[in-house]
Amino acid sequence: MIQYYLLACSQWRFSILTGDCRYVLCFTRKTELPNRTDLERIAVSCTTTLTILKILLIRRTPNPRKANISVGHKFYHIALLIDQQFQAYNAARLNEAARLYAEEMLNPANDVTVGLTMAGALTPAGLGGCLITLMENGFVDFIISTGANLYHDMHHALAMSLHRGDFRLDDTKLQEEGVIRIYDILFADNVLLDTDAFVRECLKSLPNRPISTSELHYHLGTQLLKVGVNPEYSVLAQAARWNVPIYTSSPGDSSIGMNVARNALDGSQLTLDPLADVNETTAIVHHATRNGVIILGGGSPKNFYLQTQPQLWEVLGIHKGGHDYFIQITADAPHWGGLSGATPSEAVSWGKIKPDQLNSTVVIYGDSTIALPLLTAYVVSKAQPRPRKELFSKREQLLKELKEAYNTSKATRP
Amino acid sequence: MIQYYLLACSQWRFSILTGDCRYVLCFTRKTELPNRTDLERIAVSCTTTLTILKILLIRRTPNPRKANISVGHKFYHIALLIDQQFQAYNAARLNEAARLYAEEMLNPANDVTVGLTMAGALTPAGLGGCLITLMENGFVDFIISTGANLYHDMHHALAMSLHRGDFRLDDTKLQEEGVIRIYDILFADNVLLDTDAFVRECLKSLPNRPISTSELHYHLGTQLLKVGVNPEYSVLAQAARWNVPIYTSSPGDSSIGMNVARNALDGSQLTLDPLADVNETTAIVHHATRNGVIILGGGSPKNFYLQTQPQLWEVLGIHKGGHDYFIQITADAPHWGGLSGATPSEAVSWGKIKPDQLNSTVVIYGDSTIALPLLTAYVVSKAQPRPRKELFSKREQLLKELKEAYNTSKATRP
Amino acid sequence: MIQYYLLACSQWRFSILTGDCRYVLCFTRKTELPNRTDLERIAVSCTTTLTILKILLIRRTPNPRKANISVGHKFYHIALLIDQQFQAYNAARLNEAARLYAEEMLNPANDVTVGLTMAGALTPAGLGGCLITLMENGFVDFIISTGANLYHDMHHALAMSLHRGDFRLDDTKLQEEGVIRIYDILFADNVLLDTDAFVRECLKSLPNRPISTSELHYHLGTQLLKVGVNPEYSVLAQAARWNVPIYTSSPGDSSIGMNVARNALDGSQLTLDPLADVNETTAIVHHATRNGVIILGGGSPKNFYLQTQPQLWEVLGIHKGGHDYFIQITADAPHWGGLSGATPSEAVSWGKIKPDQLNSTVVIYGDSTIALPLLTAYVVSKAQPRPRKELFSKREQLLKELKEAYNTSKATRP
Amino acid sequence: MIQYYLLACSQWRFSILTGDCRYVLCFTRKTELPNRTDLERIAVSCTTTLTILKILLIRRTPNPRKANISVGHKFYHIALLIDQQFQAYNAARLNEAARLYAEEMLNPANDVTVGLTMAGALTPAGLGGCLITLMENGFVDFIISTGANLYHDMHHALAMSLHRGDFRLDDTKLQEEGVIRIYDILFADNVLLDTDAFVRECLKSLPNRPISTSELHYHLGTQLLKVGVNPEYSVLAQAARWNVPIYTSSPGDSSIGMNVARNALDGSQLTLDPLADVNETTAIVHHATRNGVIILGGGSPKNFYLQTQPQLWEVLGIHKGGHDYFIQITADAPHWGGLSGATPSEAVSWGKIKPDQLNSTVVIYGDSTIALPLLTAYVVSKAQPRPRKELFSKREQLLKELKEAYNTSKATRP
Repeated sequence: MIQYYLLACSQWRFSILTGDCRYVLCFTRKTELPNRTDLERIAVSCTTTLTILKILLIRRTPNPRKANISVGHKFYHIALLIDQQFQAYNAARLNEAARLYAEEMLNPANDVTVGLTMAGALTPAGLGGCLITLMENGFVDFIISTGANLYHDMHHALAMSLHRGDFRLDDTKLQEEGVIRIYDILFADNVLLDTDAFVRECLKSLPNRPISTSELHYHLGTQLLKVGVNPEYSVLAQAARWNVPIYTSSPGDSSIGMNVARNALDGSQLTLDPLADVNETTAIVHHATRNGVIILGGGSPKNFYLQTQPQLWEVLGIHKGGHDYFIQITADAPHWGGLSGATPSEAVSWGKIKPDQLNSTVVIYGDSTIALPLLTAYVVSKAQPRPRKELFSKREQLLKELKEAYNTSKATRP
Repeated sequence: MIQYYLLACSQWRFSILTGDCRYVLCFTRKTELPNRTDLERIAVSCTTTLTILKILLIRRTPNPRKANISVGHKFYHIALLIDQQFQAYNAARLNEAARLYAEEMLNPANDVTVGLTMAGALTPAGLGGCLITLMENGFVDFIISTGANLYHDMHHALAMSLHRGDFRLDDTKLQEEGVIRIYDILFADNVLLDTDAFVRECLKSLPNRPISTSELHYHLGTQLLKVGVNPEYSVLAQAARWNVPIYTSSPGDSSIGMNVARNALDGSQLTLDPLADVNETTAIVHHATRNGVIILGGGSPKNFYLQTQPQLWEVLGIHKGGHDYFIQITADAPHWGGLSGATPSEAVSWGKIKPDQLNSTVVIYGDSTIALPLLTAYVVSKAQPRPRKELFSKREQLLKELKEAYNTSKATRP
Repeated sequence: MIQYYLLACSQWRFSILTGDCRYVLCFTRKTELPNRTDLERIAVSCTTTLTILKILLIRRTPNPRKANISVGHKFYHIALLIDQQFQAYNAARLNEAARLYAEEMLNPANDVTVGLTMAGALTPAGLGGCLITLMENGFVDFIISTGANLYHDMHHALAMSLHRGDFRLDDTKLQEEGVIRIYDILFADNVLLDTDAFVRECLKSLPNRPISTSELHYHLGTQLLKVGVNPEYSVLAQAARWNVPIYTSSPGDSSIGMNVARNALDGSQLTLDPLADVNETTAIVHHATRNGVIILGGGSPKNFYLQTQPQLWEVLGIHKGGHDYFIQITADAPHWGGLSGATPSEAVSWGKIKPDQLNSTVVIYGDSTIALPLLTAYVVSKAQPRPRKELFSKREQLLKELKEAYNTSKATRP
Repeated sequence: MIQYYLLACSQWRFSILTGDCRYVLCFTRKTELPNRTDLERIAVSCTTTLTILKILLIRRTPNPRKANISVGHKFYHIALLIDQQFQAYNAARLNEAARLYAEEMLNPANDVTVGLTMAGALTPAGLGGCLITLMENGFVDFIISTGANLYHDMHHALAMSLHRGDFRLDDTKLQEEGVIRIYDILFADNVLLDTDAFVRECLKSLPNRPISTSELHYHLGTQLLKVGVNPEYSVLAQAARWNVPIYTSSPGDSSIGMNVARNALDGSQLTLDPLADVNETTAIVHHATRNGVIILGGGSPKNFYLQTQPQLWEVLGIHKGGHDYFIQITADAPHWGGLSGATPSEAVSWGKIKPDQLNSTVVIYGDSTIALPLLTAYVVSKAQPRPRKELFSKREQLLKELKEAYNTSKATRP
């Protein structure tokens, strides 16, 4: 049986926990969650699951009613569970990470600039709500992400539907029906085409020269704030609203980059400048009193964050000493030798993490879709909101500081 | 920094969530959780971390005060989080498993006999509290476990201390100091020696012949209820109290089996009979209206549960059709080819799972220490307690039914 | 496309590399390997793949011709590749393990008793050839295995066919057609029924009392040597021939145990005694000058081997100091906290491995089906055959030694 | 014990298997491989392992003698092993991949353009030899790589030493001693500083405008051919020699990008244009008769290759139908939801792989350091060398073709 819920994605926000749930079957107007038997009955009455899906994709209710969640007779608090029950193995890591984040990284006395990196495609899985909550509370100051996370984030703002599906569906049939699959998430291929058109429309108001990806993403976010149906559910839009800069380490590697490349085929001189991104992120890290990071997954975004320290000491000759706090949620492992799974300890040998801060590093092995909501619920419960750093609007100043430090260092180490 | 908390283990119960937390540093009498800075200060003031640990192991406060947990200004409900935020990837699997368990497996109309299997060493990691909660509510009817889970469970009943440690400690030093490590859990080696002595004392009141492991475990549990300091924190003890039979698929493979083996060297005729276990578990499954299982990890206990169906059709010629519900939490993967990571689908080809029940199977990839507490909190919130089946006291009757069915089948297929 | 080769299983032996390959399509009499295009054409001409399979299972050619392997124009030597090209990450681990095995564990001066443990189901995947080669050369002295490995090993001796299949086949259809799947291996369900009948026939000549699993397996092997069609391809048969004792840590957990359990339902007093296994394996380890192990996978067999050292010091009061050499091939990881993935270092804290031998431990992360053939080819290339220890016939003597040592220790530590 | 061999890296070539092994301890002049006992003796005689390493890094012998490899008394052929022994689980996948590559992808009749993608840091682990062999034989036509693979590749050409180390070394001590660690590979930090200086020197002869990364890498390779000590051991150098274009999907994310970023801080207008890379790779795929890929790891390079098909149909409106052949070696898994572990089947739903070519896709789960040398040895044994496509010099022409097709498509779908 395939469950045909609308993916609520970023629609559930931690700061407004009012039962505002749109987690409702899109082809009913029921106010309650249908049970599995109902779903199976419906599924059986149609000839193929794909047919159902197609109906869904066409007929989806524009304004599903909010579900009434009956809370049940017993009640458990997430932060209590994490503090009291998560005592060993990865549960203990999640507990340590939650406390490290809430008690140290978000402690105003420590004045930590918090980066967050995202691999994979987490926004289509509905993690946007966590990210927006963290940004709103001043708990994340800048983001390094794959393009996929940012591209698929736009669907939410543009009110395009993603659907809960099944990872065992027949992809050949899906392709025939024009349905795209990301593991267990399904959507119509015109979601791609329409989002592409939106991206290309946005490009028209950008300058005809190399720009950093933070400028590109800020521009996309601003446009979503203007014309998006649900910009409140979009990481890009809210990041733009709160001046949280978003970088990507692989600017050509996603449908965003693919559309900018088409733009170039059309003769535009607009291009994306990865070196500007290197310098901007290094400038942010250079300026910070202390640096800390939440790493979701690993991949190229992880390295792009961590390399800011070697960029300082190895390439620019400026000694900062390494990052201070490090939390990673990953399903990778150290023993394959890659950077995604590399331990914080290995990062010490590269000067990426301060040796005496190794106790302030935690790796949780598991799925970000489970661990991040728990971590977010914990820190929102435990830590006071911080003033947002609004780093996007300070980039010029931070770059200037970096250049001055570099010029000073060149005097002694050319 | 190594965190020297006492492992609360099974001391936190889902059914009595009153802030009853003993998660307190054992070398202080503070009523509040010490912060990391305090711990670091203490750690630094000693010459080696091992020294601290040794002090801890000797001086641990017998009755740590309960911690006052300040709940913070915001509040999140676990079942709501799981229903609303867990939408894709393994978060969706956890959501599906929680609903499958609460809505179908525990639905009185379905009359499901629920087995639970445990690999690894989960009780030292503190998962006993979940298991006791599930048994108490009638949510688990019988258990198949590694010996390690049952052996280390006795420490809690006997008030021996396990400690939160660090998985990166120097094992050579630990061994010199007489400290044993299970990943990030530490305890003194006399915990082993004292538990061994308890086991051997218990053996004296057992008969001089082959017995099933359910008899052995029931006997150990009964003794813990009698003489244990904290039998309320022990899976073995509470299972004995509620007549939940516990089997092990590898009776010689743990310190329990090792001590029974010493008993045999001393000339005893007491031995453990794996065939009795095969027949008892098959009799339970044979008797059930419907069968469902929660598989923690995988390993030999997973197969021992699943093989009850082939035991019926393949070996005894009795057609039952396969299990009905299947939930597994595992860090293994199908693509290594082993049974631990094998999909429920593969089990269909063996007649282990009913083909038309494949939709009632879920695998969550990740760590049981995180997923099981979430699952437990969910089902206790959502499902009504069931009358306990007390299968231990019905074994004779169920075996009789199985033998009759077997004799009937032999008449047609010798 | 499904590849319908006959699984050659243990038919290819390292010591007789003469191109003796039966890796031939079972529904042709071609002397050469058919190419993929031929296979596809055949597959398309039938209505369903299952139909083909069924035909195959019935019509399989009893004596497939040997294939002519054309070797190609270039030539690479496995041991050279491992020594020269395997330099970092898991390739380096494989290189280290190969050298540790060939140069130290098999060095006559070190007089190492070599155990081998097997999880999962590796014999159906064709690893029997490696195991037989290692036993024949005196490179493995005793084995601890899951029952699955031993049960499915009998199919080869009994000339029953296992087939290369596809892990993505529809299991519901397979079940309808009576085809059993182990990941990508397929066979008819009567392979189970016929092997079961063989096992039960063998039980008739066993005594009516508890026996160790080494006795059971030796008896099965002896029967296979007598009545098996291809005993030269069976681990059980060859182990019996060379007096290599084989234990299982979970005697009820496989179709072997299931059939012994049926035997018990029929009133037999024959049972399997896990404590005898604990004492026999401990006696072997106690007697050895040095101990070393090859661990395939992990699971219960891994712990059953390792626990022989705590059985000595913790339970029996005999100080041996731990194992000396440790090689594991596994897809598990330390960070899940289980024993399967636990590091050799953690084993030091338990007294399972000698602290000063930690340099003689290696874990290779990956699939045994790839690593074990490479390791076997390496050691057969590099090390001289050793006289076989024939431990099965020395069990009584070793047990006597163990009991004497235990009695001596009891005098000082009761 | 830490093994202090010089990492031979790309120094062993498959096409010149003459025992040309430089796999020799750097602090001896012995002609044979030292055994472990010797190494331990040396290690013990020094106070700390770091001291040894430091000595090594300073005193390394400039011209280590070639080792005499004694081949042993038995002999196994890699291709035979793979064809005959690799029958199930991941061994079968490796066999299928080897045959798919040798028999179909390299079949001249199929005229396949073969891409290869690399995540992580495989060149420091010594896989350069395989890559050079594959390029030399015309078996790889273009490469998409992380920057790390290309940056560390230069050390070999520049005769800087990488060393076999241990993944368990104390990173704080390493950092104090100026030693950098990549899992189990060690090198002095001046290897970074000197390579950086080389990169910046090379930048001087590049134009002051955005260039594609293929131009950058070709330029670096050309310079290595000119001034490198051992350009024959460098992927970058040999790729330049044979006109194999190399792209990176994340141009700022490595020490190469970091140095180009410093160049920008110095005022240069040279930047890297990810859109040029998107268009060049798409043009290569568009031009090909058939497309096939070898994916090492996964990560951003995997997606960058696969997205060329959606770039055609989704963004440019040109219907090509998807890739034809797909081989991936990875330690990731589908069930985490990321693209690295996504199945070829999922790619079908995106139009990345042709639906009717799903049978020509294989995923091998495991470590590329083991699987790639085996795969390389197999194809070099079995397949005839192909004329090299020299795509770097044809980029202009291919881009022109792409633009024409795009303009044609725009006429019908604007």
